Amino acid sequence: MDLREFIDIVGKDNVLTDKVDVIPYTKDASFFTGKIPYAVLLPQNVNQVSSIMRICQRDDIQVTVRGGGSSLTGSSILAEEGVILSMARFDRILETAIEDRYVVAEAGVKLDYLNSHLSKYGHFYPPDPASSIAATVGGSISTNAGGLRAAMYGATKEWVLGLEVVLPDGTIIQTGGKVLKRSIGYDLTALMVGSEGTLGVITKAILKIAPLPESYGRIMVYYKSIEEAGRAISSLKKRGITPLIAEFMDRISMDSITHTKGIKFPEDAQYLLLIDISSTHESLDKKLNEAAEILKSTDILGMRITKDPEEMAVMYQARKGLYSSQLSEREKPGEYVIIGDIVVPASRLPKTLSEIKGSIENYGLKVALFGHIGDGNIHANIFADVNNSEQMKRVNDFMMELGRIALRNEGSVSSEHGIGIEKIELLKEEYRYKNSLKNLDIMREIKKIFDPKNILNRGKMF
Amino acid sequence: MDLREFIDIVGKDNVLTDKVDVIPYTKDASFFTGKIPYAVLLPQNVNQVSSIMRICQRDDIQVTVRGGGSSLTGSSILAEEGVILSMARFDRILETAIEDRYVVAEAGVKLDYLNSHLSKYGHFYPPDPASSIAATVGGSISTNAGGLRAAMYGATKEWVLGLEVVLPDGTIIQTGGKVLKRSIGYDLTALMVGSEGTLGVITKAILKIAPLPESYGRIMVYYKSIEEAGRAISSLKKRGITPLIAEFMDRISMDSITHTKGIKFPEDAQYLLLIDISSTHESLDKKLNEAAEILKSTDILGMRITKDPEEMAVMYQARKGLYSSQLSEREKPGEYVIIGDIVVPASRLPKTLSEIKGSIENYGLKVALFGHIGDGNIHANIFADVNNSEQMKRVNDFMMELGRIALRNEGSVSSEHGIGIEKIELLKEEYRYKNSLKNLDIMREIKKIFDPKNILNRGKMF
Repeated sequence: MDLREFIDIVGKDNVLTDKVDVIPYTKDASFFTGKIPYAVLLPQNVNQVSSIMRICQRDDIQVTVRGGGSSLTGSSILAEEGVILSMARFDRILETAIEDRYVVAEAGVKLDYLNSHLSKYGHFYPPDPASSIAATVGGSISTNAGGLRAAMYGATKEWVLGLEVVLPDGTIIQTGGKVLKRSIGYDLTALMVGSEGTLGVITKAILKIAPLPESYGRIMVYYKSIEEAGRAISSLKKRGITPLIAEFMDRISMDSITHTKGIKFPEDAQYLLLIDISSTHESLDKKLNEAAEILKSTDILGMRITKDPEEMAVMYQARKGLYSSQLSEREKPGEYVIIGDIVVPASRLPKTLSEIKGSIENYGLKVALFGHIGDGNIHANIFADVNNSEQMKRVNDFMMELGRIALRNEGSVSSEHGIGIEKIELLKEEYRYKNSLKNLDIMREIKKIFDPKNILNRGKMF
Repeated sequence: MDLREFIDIVGKDNVLTDKVDVIPYTKDASFFTGKIPYAVLLPQNVNQVSSIMRICQRDDIQVTVRGGGSSLTGSSILAEEGVILSMARFDRILETAIEDRYVVAEAGVKLDYLNSHLSKYGHFYPPDPASSIAATVGGSISTNAGGLRAAMYGATKEWVLGLEVVLPDGTIIQTGGKVLKRSIGYDLTALMVGSEGTLGVITKAILKIAPLPESYGRIMVYYKSIEEAGRAISSLKKRGITPLIAEFMDRISMDSITHTKGIKFPEDAQYLLLIDISSTHESLDKKLNEAAEILKSTDILGMRITKDPEEMAVMYQARKGLYSSQLSEREKPGEYVIIGDIVVPASRLPKTLSEIKGSIENYGLKVALFGHIGDGNIHANIFADVNNSEQMKRVNDFMMELGRIALRNEGSVSSEHGIGIEKIELLKEEYRYKNSLKNLDIMREIKKIFDPKNILNRGKMF
């Protein structure tokens, strides 16, 4: 492939072609391995992105945009041959407008960096995927990332006010704006959220921000039964309580944290709920007690309430590092951790969790269950040897069954990880189940408007 | 026109054709008069809507969907000849799931009715246009309605989880679902929000709900200078305070309330800010005092703090009835009240308000200024004699200038009323200003996917 034009645009140092440089881009946080890119391009500004896209569209070169490379579904690797467009150089926070409740950041800004910046002003950007140390503004928009705090603050789609986007033909468009509400034609900003790099290249985002919670405390409560853990969340929400975060994990998850971080949990505990309650300084104790009373009325093994910032921070980081911790639980080299990601209404949690547990036994797999249970989001980490085809068949069957369990319980097959390569079948399954396959036709037509030659992230989503 | 097929579908009583019955449908809350409909159809279920649409698409009959008829931009009247599809019979609340934080309602359910229902469960649906007594679920979704509480809770787009939509070819699709987050292809639900009846007929919505605020109090504060009123809001938000509602009104607005409701305001007050602060029971006084202290540091004429529910309710209703009150301020018959609706970032409020005031004087018009200033939304009610062409030219010029003032101050020409017939030019102006006319091309292409024969709400938006 002739790379001279790309070198003219971004400079020699920003066109990677050496094997040793490009091989890392065949992996993201999923278990897939992508094609080796012809080149990895690192543009530094929107005009360079525009010039690159013009060439790619002209020459029919497939482009996959890459943020932090933390996709769990293969969104950020090449499903077909092409180039990787890395947004790593788009790392600047351009504007911080506290009274206007927005921040303008380039697409490659990492979420933890953004929040460390905003915390100086007593504010934050709520979307909070566990990968926030690596995940970027652009990448998290592309999958409509959720994370821990979505229990209270909702997913990314509620926090994006506007975007700068480069279309495949090189056109640069601005969507949305710096205002908190608007009603001016179809919402192209919302259309970009969750589009997984298939419609355009996000170069800049105007993000809504919020004041940091005034104070919060934590209740950790242990269960023997998975249904009872689910019932606990239902009970809280029935009483109008919306936790700041509400995390769930099983014994395998707890053990992996013990092994990697040294945090111990009660021996008889099979399931843990970790529930943060935020309120004003004056009301925090009362709110924590209210929540604790409701939880005590469920069948618990033990409970711990804390407001100690250090203790809370340690456990928060342990939860965010759970995926890494579980990697250390693999029994042989070549074993992967494949993550299921479903969501159901809170009232369906007990039944859903019980059905999942039954299904895990049926398929004879080792699976760790955890997730952002406050918004009904359950993750299933499946330990799988990708070289064992018999086992991988069971893994695939279990993943499909997991999706069907979600659908039967009025949920969705993908909560916050997107479709990527992994869930193409499950995407169809969901719309088939809802008797709305037409939705997929509409989506394909929308794709054609933005990307008529299908050069953006080919082989993903559809 | 042959109406027999429609009569076969919905029954004779649900096809209105008598002049006296159809004439009211030539008006909505805007100053426009629409074409007289061939017929007004009142379907009772989604299959009837589907059958109607199939006929209309086949015979190229233009359809305008009508909810409460409270559009301020002419969205719900016929710009071209056709039929009106009234959603009045879609008036049922189908499911109330408190712990799952959603309610399922048919499109014709009125917002006040919905909230009166939800209040029994200590919950509410936050979008709160001043017309909520008439405005419907479907109509408010179609314009991405905001209203008073959007200051804290955001506009409609943040509260719609899923929709049932009938496409022009009669296909019934389900978008979104009953879960609080999901990442499963392009967000067709979000695309419908704000689409003003141009893409499909919304028949049912899954709406997110929230617990009612635990307690709130009100600060009413008076100003002589418009800039200072704007500065007050900036100051609050700079300090991390997000009011539950923050309304602004000028002397004309106050006088109209005095005339219709008998509520008196201090004589020297030119501008009023009405600010509700919500918090926990334990913290409300402290939060009210914090806000009051910040407001006292601006140049105020007087202040009143109240937590009396009755007093707060009276003034809330007076604010919601402001448009009606202002109708009574018209000086001659034939005079209309035409509403401007712009939005800017909070920090731009002082400059924006000052520029608007200057512009009103330039154009020599009588204009009442008010609005949901907490999210930067300013309404300008222009008293205009639609039969006076010289004056109407000045009105139109002022409306364009108002939009340009918003754009120069990083805002938008439409905050919550949509485009309809009224703002077709302003829509273009905004994307031209942002060097993103391509956005309109994309929107037109999206329109073609959904509605290839352009039978839905022709003559609106584009």
